Parts: sequence; C-alpha cells; structure tokens
Amino acid sequence: MASIAASARRAAARCAFRAPARNNVAALRGLATFQLGRLNHVALAVPDIEEASAMWRDALGASVSELQALPDHGVTVCFVDAGNTHVELLEPLGDASPIAAFLAKSPSGGLHHLCHEVDDVEAAMADLKARGVRLLSEEPKIGAHGVPVVFLHPKDTNGVLVELQQAIPAEDS
Amino acid sequence: MASIAASARRAAARCAFRAPARNNVAALRGLATFQLGRLNHVALAVPDIEEASAMWRDALGASVSELQALPDHGVTVCFVDAGNTHVELLEPLGDASPIAAFLAKSPSGGLHHLCHEVDDVEAAMADLKARGVRLLSEEPKIGAHGVPVVFLHPKDTNGVLVELQQAIPAEDS
Repeated sequence: MASIAASARRAAARCAFRAPARNNVAALRGLATFQLGRLNHVALAVPDIEEASAMWRDALGASVSELQALPDHGVTVCFVDAGNTHVELLEPLGDASPIAAFLAKSPSGGLHHLCHEVDDVEAAMADLKARGVRLLSEEPKIGAHGVPVVFLHPKDTNGVLVELQQAIPAEDS
Repeated sequence: MASIAASARRAAARCAFRAPARNNVAALRGLATFQLGRLNHVALAVPDIEEASAMWRDALGASVSELQALPDHGVTVCFVDAGNTHVELLEPLGDASPIAAFLAKSPSGGLHHLCHEVDDVEAAMADLKARGVRLLSEEPKIGAHGVPVVFLHPKDTNGVLVELQQAIPAEDS
C-alpha cells in the first residue's frame, strides 16, 4: 500500500487546482459572476430502467433508490447513490417525454445531462442571459427534487446539456 | 426562501434511500460482493479541450485545472472542480488515442465514461469476473491519477463505460 499512497500523493500534487485566473482570460461572452457548485447528479437516459437499475445494484454493488414515476416530468427515475453524488437513471414516461427524442437517436441510452448546483438559480440565469448563453426556459422550473432548475442550451455549452439546480439549504440552516 | 426549504425537505423525504434488498433480488449474474464507491469523475471526450475548458471556466463559473498532456494515456486532460467530484475533459493526443474512435463517431464529443472508486480494485475485478462481467484488461492499469484502475466492458454495463479506480487513502491514514 505504500506505493499506492505515494502515487496518491503524486497524483494530488499533479492535480492541484489553482483559482481561475479570471483577469487574464479572454472570454468570448464575459465571465460568470456565479460559481458552479457541486455535481448534484449525472443523468443517464435508459431504454429500460428496471434492467439498468438492476445492473447498477446487482452487477456493480451500488445502492439504488426505488423507481419513481413522475408523470408531470414525463419520466420514471431512480437514483444510484455514489456517496458524493447520484447517477440518475431516466426512462421515458408518457407520450410527450422530454427524453423520447434522445432515445430515438441513441436507442441504447447514454448521458442525458449533468446537473450542477448553484446558490441562486435566478441570479445565475440573469448572468447567463446577459452574456448571451441561451436557456431552455424563460423562468426556472421546479425539478424532480422539488427545487428551481433551469437547463442551458447545449449549443452554448459544447454540446453537453447542463442543468443548474438551486442548492438545497442544509437542514440545520 | 421558506418555500424552497420546504421543497427541499419534501425532496429529501421523497429521495430517501433504503439499503438494497439484496436478498430479494433475482440477479442474472449474482450479486456484487464489493460496494461501488464515490464518483471520482465523469469524463467527457471533447474535440477541443482549450475551447471546452474555457466554456466551463468562463461561461459556467467553474474552477478548471491546467491542461495536462499524458502521452502514455493518449490524452490531454483537465479537470473541472465541482467540489464533490470532477468533470474530466479528454482530448485525443497522438495517433493511438483510446478516445479517437469515440470522437470519430461523435465529433462534437459527449460522455466517455463514469469513474467510481472501490476499496480494492483487484478484489472487485475477481468478483466481476467470477460473475461473468467482462473487463477490458486482465490486470489493473495505473490510471491518470496514479492509482490502479480497470474498465468494464460496456456491453455488460448497459452501454455505459464504467471505470473502477482504487480509492485513494486519506493523507492522514
């Protein structure tokens, strides 16, 4: 284990983060005034959520939540608990599911979106709009977790669909 | 903010996890004897890492590491620090990059893999092999973080490429 610990220290040294050099960056659309927060979940669209959740639970030893049908959101979901974040599995539900088009293009499924927390969704939306980053709704919506969310236009985020979710206040605050 | 706090409590109640009911699950290949750990990173293949890292840093307000060329791994990488985990951006490097085929199929990039930590990669590999889950290498390799890793065959993991990485011991242990 000594060599692993040494490797880990070397890796930590290599991967040390520096504060972004905001003053030195030539940005196309200006610089964000908000801070991107923790990854709340990474969402995978799957054609068969029973099969996918069984794979994560049985083959990979993960804790997986029960399935939840969310007809208002057009999906059935469950969450793989990774300890520090969740993998969200999404299966289409109903005729107007927002992930139906994705699965029509990628029938075996794949990454649907990344969801990061921000302290204030409305402030982040105003900041993004002011810098020309397109949003998929004019107003925040109430997401599957019961808090305000907004999706950014993937053409403005290098092809990756990014959701911003209002950070959930700690229970003791 | 009262309504958000109330929504957060409702969400927490809805998303409460239960221990997996391992004894009640009819598994195709038996049940994992290891526990899937934290999401170390979600890796995105990108055609232009300068552009992608600038997007995460400038447009989305994230802390982003410097670019690292890893010729032995055939990639240039950088890490978006989400606090609880990292988004790893990967651009092909050299003629035999392991992500070249991915970008040939998906030129605008996308999810390349999810990397979860496990306490003991070799024990997890033995367990997976015994249950018929195929691995992409017979032996663990030393990954970009300097610790043993293994990739699972995506045909056995619902089409998602999953990397298992030896958990890095805490500095004080």
